[in-house]
Amino acid sequence: MEHRDWMVLGKQVSDWIKEAADQLRDSLSLPLEISEKSAHNDLVTNMDRSIERYLVEKIRTAYPDDKIISEEGYGDGVKDKTGVLWLLDPIDGTLNFVMQKRFFAISIGIYENGKGKAAFIYDVMGDELFHCLTGHGAYQNAKKLPKLTEVTIENALIDLSATWLKPNRRIDEEIMTDIVRRSSGTRAYGAASLELAYVAAGYLDAYFTMRLSPWDYGAGLILLSEVGGCYSRADGTPIDILEKTSVLAARPGLHAYIVDHIQKQVKKGKIISEPK
Amino acid sequence: MEHRDWMVLGKQVSDWIKEAADQLRDSLSLPLEISEKSAHNDLVTNMDRSIERYLVEKIRTAYPDDKIISEEGYGDGVKDKTGVLWLLDPIDGTLNFVMQKRFFAISIGIYENGKGKAAFIYDVMGDELFHCLTGHGAYQNAKKLPKLTEVTIENALIDLSATWLKPNRRIDEEIMTDIVRRSSGTRAYGAASLELAYVAAGYLDAYFTMRLSPWDYGAGLILLSEVGGCYSRADGTPIDILEKTSVLAARPGLHAYIVDHIQKQVKKGKIISEPK
Repeated sequence: MEHRDWMVLGKQVSDWIKEAADQLRDSLSLPLEISEKSAHNDLVTNMDRSIERYLVEKIRTAYPDDKIISEEGYGDGVKDKTGVLWLLDPIDGTLNFVMQKRFFAISIGIYENGKGKAAFIYDVMGDELFHCLTGHGAYQNAKKLPKLTEVTIENALIDLSATWLKPNRRIDEEIMTDIVRRSSGTRAYGAASLELAYVAAGYLDAYFTMRLSPWDYGAGLILLSEVGGCYSRADGTPIDILEKTSVLAARPGLHAYIVDHIQKQVKKGKIISEPK
Repeated sequence: MEHRDWMVLGKQVSDWIKEAADQLRDSLSLPLEISEKSAHNDLVTNMDRSIERYLVEKIRTAYPDDKIISEEGYGDGVKDKTGVLWLLDPIDGTLNFVMQKRFFAISIGIYENGKGKAAFIYDVMGDELFHCLTGHGAYQNAKKLPKLTEVTIENALIDLSATWLKPNRRIDEEIMTDIVRRSSGTRAYGAASLELAYVAAGYLDAYFTMRLSPWDYGAGLILLSEVGGCYSRADGTPIDILEKTSVLAARPGLHAYIVDHIQKQVKKGKIISEPK
């Protein structure tokens, strides 16, 4: 493999994302073609496909040996983590894109032999790019993000969807009850990459979900690592970046506290079930 | 009472809010003095007090006969709705202000003899002013908001805090379960005035909470009325703007659907309890 200049790549990818974002903003005045995927609230639009195709072509032209896992199917059938792997979501938060025309993001995470190397999460309408090259610090636009410090559960803002607090297929609805009740409050924004970026930026103290795909969390986990944040599956075991998975991401200390809480609930017989 | 020129008032209040917002933005680089009120997540800062004092003085100077109900105690002991009444929250979303330094709002609603006349909800960091003079249309900055149309529960984004889905003092945790499960998804932003403005702007289809004070909802309800939105207490009965109350605000049709759902749950013996 050629020696890669990650600084050059960082500039390239930022430029591609800004160009893709211009296309997205321009599209907001045009009619949107919307189809349902697995469910009435699992949507794909012509713009998801169009932006993914645009970005995949850019990546393939500049880095033809790299592999791509992306949401709408223009990527590769990736079986292993060797080489450089791009995890790409052209529009994370498609429901927000369709219904709110705001609070959606372009998310790109890049791994080399399984290790996070670069992350880009761009809030298109907020014009806010969260980004990092591993080892060089994480940024919110031009502002460097400080390392994350610890916080108690009583002073924590937790992001989690109401889905996981009511009967569902992935987690006993009682498992997170005490976390919700002890925390300062809960939030839910509906765009996983931005919610992970918000943990990295300190706007949220933890983010929890039972079901994400590699393109949803790929960039967010790299960004989070760069500021000293912690992440794992709900039960504390490691995330495999080729798999759908639960994700618990949080400040250090708080992550351990929530994992411990969930493990105790599981020991008492409550059920969690990883997505397939 | 003097004849009031509401257009002049609209311009005045917008100017006061922008000036107050400048003070708030300037304060973000300075240390914040934070105290707890009723609970560890019910906070007040020196800036809540300072902004309220600033706005109350502006109102008292320009409109000395008006009455004011405000969050931090610089207002009046108001017993009835005659005359002109201002419902003022200097920082709605104080927890967001303290923890995120974003997603908080200045909220001012003005009633005359109990009828909504003018509303101003300003997202300070997003520089987004939702405003209306009753009868003249509602606006998001300079953009006129269209009248709200109907939506089914399956296509609805519902904003409600996880608090109301777990054991709490105000509502049986099961009452909203089916609403959550049938909807397209749930959101929670943590600033009631903005969440009500988001319903008015069509970013959310419904907002539900069991506990708000007049300064939290005063402006939002006026804005919502102006675009044809519906609101009531959780059980469908009218809101008294002098009282703490539950609030269900939604698009027409969806509001009736959710009220009907809640009333059926109450008939089955489930409990809701208005705040005092």
